[in-house]
Amino acid sequence: MIVTGASGFIGRHAVSALAGKGHAVTAISRSGRPADMPEADNVRWISADILDAEAAKSAVDKAEADTLVHIAWDVSPGYWTAPNNLQWLEASLHLARVFRDAGGRRIVSAGSCAEYDWSDAAIAGGDLDERTSAFNPATFYATCKRSLHTTLASWGEEAGISVAWGLLFFSFGPFEQRQRLLPDVALALLRGEVPRTTAGTQVRDFMDARDAGAAMAALAESVVTGPVNIALGDGLSIADFVDLIRKHTAPGATIERGALPMREGDPARIVANVERLSNEVGFTPEYSVDAGVRDAVSWWRAQL
Amino acid sequence: MIVTGASGFIGRHAVSALAGKGHAVTAISRSGRPADMPEADNVRWISADILDAEAAKSAVDKAEADTLVHIAWDVSPGYWTAPNNLQWLEASLHLARVFRDAGGRRIVSAGSCAEYDWSDAAIAGGDLDERTSAFNPATFYATCKRSLHTTLASWGEEAGISVAWGLLFFSFGPFEQRQRLLPDVALALLRGEVPRTTAGTQVRDFMDARDAGAAMAALAESVVTGPVNIALGDGLSIADFVDLIRKHTAPGATIERGALPMREGDPARIVANVERLSNEVGFTPEYSVDAGVRDAVSWWRAQL
Repeated sequence: MIVTGASGFIGRHAVSALAGKGHAVTAISRSGRPADMPEADNVRWISADILDAEAAKSAVDKAEADTLVHIAWDVSPGYWTAPNNLQWLEASLHLARVFRDAGGRRIVSAGSCAEYDWSDAAIAGGDLDERTSAFNPATFYATCKRSLHTTLASWGEEAGISVAWGLLFFSFGPFEQRQRLLPDVALALLRGEVPRTTAGTQVRDFMDARDAGAAMAALAESVVTGPVNIALGDGLSIADFVDLIRKHTAPGATIERGALPMREGDPARIVANVERLSNEVGFTPEYSVDAGVRDAVSWWRAQL
Repeated sequence: MIVTGASGFIGRHAVSALAGKGHAVTAISRSGRPADMPEADNVRWISADILDAEAAKSAVDKAEADTLVHIAWDVSPGYWTAPNNLQWLEASLHLARVFRDAGGRRIVSAGSCAEYDWSDAAIAGGDLDERTSAFNPATFYATCKRSLHTTLASWGEEAGISVAWGLLFFSFGPFEQRQRLLPDVALALLRGEVPRTTAGTQVRDFMDARDAGAAMAALAESVVTGPVNIALGDGLSIADFVDLIRKHTAPGATIERGALPMREGDPARIVANVERLSNEVGFTPEYSVDAGVRDAVSWWRAQL
């Protein structure tokens, strides 16, 4: 198995899960094995930037793998609208192509719940379901992910490659970008500041990044094709999520809730139907949101 | 202006139209200037295979153009399902990216009416309209074209590039692939054979390739963005089109109509609404289907 984005926020947990199950893993990352990840006999780290076509091809050729778990993508701040999403789509198509040329047979790619139609009318249908909900990305990032997935799915049928993609919902954990909700609130509280948040009435489907990575690994091991929601299937308001962060960081601390305006057009509720992940992939998450927030806060505390 | 696929069936007419209007044209083609196209002071031919990333970048850099008319794509027999459509999508994204990096400002790309939803329910709505008809490609070729266009459109908004794409309907003319309808029937009749056709009740929107290329050129010159149907807006049954071929090839010859089964799922009617092309782009076609078939048959006769 190849894992791209192997040192990333989600990818590192896919590597660990696959290695833990005895798979030979080729872990591709721009910077090689991170110091905090242990060496393992069945994990070979290759330093390669998959935006570099030759480096990507060389890494894939060395791996001689039959399954590619493609998680790498640039999600640095501003990524929803960043023009370089185009290059990530281009590089992802190239990766798929050279992987197939090298004899690869199955591709599992990381997607996003933002590939779904988030309009009020669509969201009103209830939990987002891979089989019945409409896809209609509203951002450039999600458009590129959606293009990648529709294209790979159709290509898979013509080229004889098994293709699945995991639609990641709201993952959190160590190594998250600092401007995102959990690090933003937790670091403010740990510094003794008063976090300013929106009213936080929006309901989201949060999942520990360890489970998200393990779910991607389980999807890679399965024969399931097409889109699969990677989520707990539980809705929690952002306000309640922020309360969990406070509980594990600075119980009783003040939060200026409602100090920031709600983002215009932000959907009221984004929660996954997880029947495919649960029944078809057979994946059971290990961490509750509460336990995940506890561990993530503990990690962020250690970064100070 | 850059034109890719410049020696192709449609591209050659885009080159001629743009050159005729005085634009400086960089014509990119795998094999350079075809012997039958005249040299012109304002057309520079560059031999480059755009599937070769370095060659594509080098050609784009040399052109120093502000508009890219991207028509190149592999439409050799079997192209609806050919796995290498993936590589054409990848190469097209790369081309767009290096064009922008070189200072490019507008991209006009060739698409296909097969990007529309061709299901009975969708087609029943009447003429296909870029503003109201649903897009839902059913083939891998059209899926790749659709991915290219949704991605470029969204990228254009983020990166400040003006993007339009021409949805080509049923073009015919010289240099068409020989297995396609006009050459297939015309060459059979010219050889004194009895062509075998379907009942031919399907209605299609046929357009002379000279007009299709000129319409792409007009679109490139305009400031129109988004999808634009490239068609006459007139429906003609395939049986009537075959009759025109016979009229200009071997009047009175026998055709075994109905000898071949209709292709399952082939839509009854694919005709374009051409208000955008006519009113917004301001393009008026020059050739009737009758005149186009006459000239195409004359060209095919000369190839024997």
